[in-house]
Amino acid sequence: MDCIFCKIIEGTLPSKKVYETEQVVAFHDIQPKAPVHIVIIPKKHIPTMNDLQKEDYALLGDIHEAAQHIAKDLGVEQSGYRLVNNCNKDSGQIVFHIHYHLLGGEPLGDIVGSR
Amino acid sequence: MDCIFCKIIEGTLPSKKVYETEQVVAFHDIQPKAPVHIVIIPKKHIPTMNDLQKEDYALLGDIHEAAQHIAKDLGVEQSGYRLVNNCNKDSGQIVFHIHYHLLGGEPLGDIVGSR
Repeated sequence: MDCIFCKIIEGTLPSKKVYETEQVVAFHDIQPKAPVHIVIIPKKHIPTMNDLQKEDYALLGDIHEAAQHIAKDLGVEQSGYRLVNNCNKDSGQIVFHIHYHLLGGEPLGDIVGSR
Repeated sequence: MDCIFCKIIEGTLPSKKVYETEQVVAFHDIQPKAPVHIVIIPKKHIPTMNDLQKEDYALLGDIHEAAQHIAKDLGVEQSGYRLVNNCNKDSGQIVFHIHYHLLGGEPLGDIVGSR
């Protein structure tokens, strides 16, 4: 398996984890775009949102539960935060293991960026 | 209820709907930030992601199922799309009825914008 997120889950690649359950892991993005920038992933390898099957939908609750906990822990629950899933090329998805960016800690600007 | 998304659900405010089920509605954003810009909402009035309760988590599957259908219908499934939830001020949330932006149709740039 040549997936860097699977390696983070296995522990063969290092990460600064902030949250972990049986289903989900979250860690600091190595190239943060905001003061708070956490990546939340399911432990199950699912390449993109297109590949989510109905039996995976429960993981979305796990991911949002993680987001709620992390936003509270890192002090952005009230100031605000953004949760982003990128799917395929136009979105800028680079790692093909589904992941949700949680961003906060300052005004985040627009939901699309400079091209 | 002074919520514009609840009024769209009720039909007392117009919208260009692209998808509707018992739980979820999706419609074109009136100020699109990309060639495809759809807003996906649960019919249940939930102000922000912070207010999502465990019993609401099933709605997240409904919302992602909507995103998958819409991405396919509007031809951005393979080219790519972004799903964004903004929560509270720093994210730029304006309407306090939880909603997911689905964006696509061109390269979307960064996940944070100019401030």
